[in-house]
Amino acid sequence: MPGEAERLSGAARTTEPCELVVEEPLEIRLSGETLAITMRTPGHDRELVVGFLLAEGVIGGISDVAGIVHCGRTGEEGRENTIDVTLVPGVRPPIDPETGLLARRGTLTTSACGVCGRRSIDDLLARAAPVAVAGTIAAEVVLESVRGLRGGQPVFERTGGCHAAALVSFGGEVLGTFEDIGRHNAVDKVIGALVLAGRPSSDLVLAVSGRASFEIVQKAIAARIAVVAAVSAPSSLAVDLARRANVTLAAFVRPPAMTLYAGAERVR
Amino acid sequence: MPGEAERLSGAARTTEPCELVVEEPLEIRLSGETLAITMRTPGHDRELVVGFLLAEGVIGGISDVAGIVHCGRTGEEGRENTIDVTLVPGVRPPIDPETGLLARRGTLTTSACGVCGRRSIDDLLARAAPVAVAGTIAAEVVLESVRGLRGGQPVFERTGGCHAAALVSFGGEVLGTFEDIGRHNAVDKVIGALVLAGRPSSDLVLAVSGRASFEIVQKAIAARIAVVAAVSAPSSLAVDLARRANVTLAAFVRPPAMTLYAGAERVR
Repeated sequence: MPGEAERLSGAARTTEPCELVVEEPLEIRLSGETLAITMRTPGHDRELVVGFLLAEGVIGGISDVAGIVHCGRTGEEGRENTIDVTLVPGVRPPIDPETGLLARRGTLTTSACGVCGRRSIDDLLARAAPVAVAGTIAAEVVLESVRGLRGGQPVFERTGGCHAAALVSFGGEVLGTFEDIGRHNAVDKVIGALVLAGRPSSDLVLAVSGRASFEIVQKAIAARIAVVAAVSAPSSLAVDLARRANVTLAAFVRPPAMTLYAGAERVR
Repeated sequence: MPGEAERLSGAARTTEPCELVVEEPLEIRLSGETLAITMRTPGHDRELVVGFLLAEGVIGGISDVAGIVHCGRTGEEGRENTIDVTLVPGVRPPIDPETGLLARRGTLTTSACGVCGRRSIDDLLARAAPVAVAGTIAAEVVLESVRGLRGGQPVFERTGGCHAAALVSFGGEVLGTFEDIGRHNAVDKVIGALVLAGRPSSDLVLAVSGRASFEIVQKAIAARIAVVAAVSAPSSLAVDLARRANVTLAAFVRPPAMTLYAGAERVR
């Protein structure tokens, strides 16, 4: 979004054009009922929603989805900020009949959170089923996976305000890169695109522009992705979860160096 | 948290000690009922909770709070991950009796979100009451406010994985700096500390280590703080909200330069 701003540099003060990363709310509905609201960068809402529903355990794959339509009021700039998902008859999301909320979340919590009402760290970790992996991966592919982020970040280049997530095959092919103001949204979008395409995930690296928190690793596990590469630092819980779930976690990935916090034996 | 990791740099591969930023869930309860769960870095939970409740409109100030106690199971490392807040009799949080959720949030949404179930951008912006300001502020103080972040980031220095937020007076005094794995948590902690100390907020700058999103500006407005300084980029909605609420928004604050996106007339 173009605008104007005042630049101060030393004693100089000038009005300059600027480009802002767009942030708008998206309401995600399930058969007309509000499920979550997230602040996101408009575009690729279908991918975002599919990735989000997979991470939250609402769907197991695209075969559970009957339809996805934008349905809200058209915004000032013509964007639609409400999206409705219909599931295939017989697919029942884990909704608590009493509260109308996702049962595995337990209660009001962050929409992109994955904490699911579990307070105990052991509870959180115990949920993670180990991810199966297609062989080993060359260190070079993990290192190069973060370069794919740069190539796919036109919004970041203009605004400096976007995160990005990419999926790269063990063979080094970049499957897709998505940008969003939110780290979690960028991951949901790239995983959603994978799910929509129906491609298997066992030979993929999830590369993220920021840090590797618990939720990022949790989203990889939900999508059965065995390697996560982050440009910045990992958290304690992200490392614990990756070790528990047989996920390779590389962080501070800045070619030609990186640090492996879990699953190092898979990197050759 | 100390650990070990494998460092790859070119052809070299070595096992090295590493320090990880701690991430653990915190359940926030109101009179025993779960209100929210957030992933945070343990420490200063009281400040976090007070800042969170102020931002969410549950309390108007510390005089609304009767007590704050940790009440959960003690974690592996002796930390307590559940905290219970009791309000002063007569203070009624905006809870929907039907859903048990915060009414102004409307529905399941991000815990640190401030979106409150409002889909329309005009709705979001209309909620912001303009912030009153104590005169003008020297550009030098805004620029220097982000240096306060560095000084107060021992965890970042060790782990590279933390955000920080600081409050600096128009006179240049650093009131406090808090670190957390979450951007919103760091802001809640530093504002919560201010509320606990009972200090007025009209002559303060909120400095943040990351970007300025809608929610960061929204938290400043809830605390009646008139100047926000961010090291990284602002979002479109953050700029709109700051302009609407009479908040000065400085971003890309990297001495000796910065860019003013709103309220530039207040900076001399």
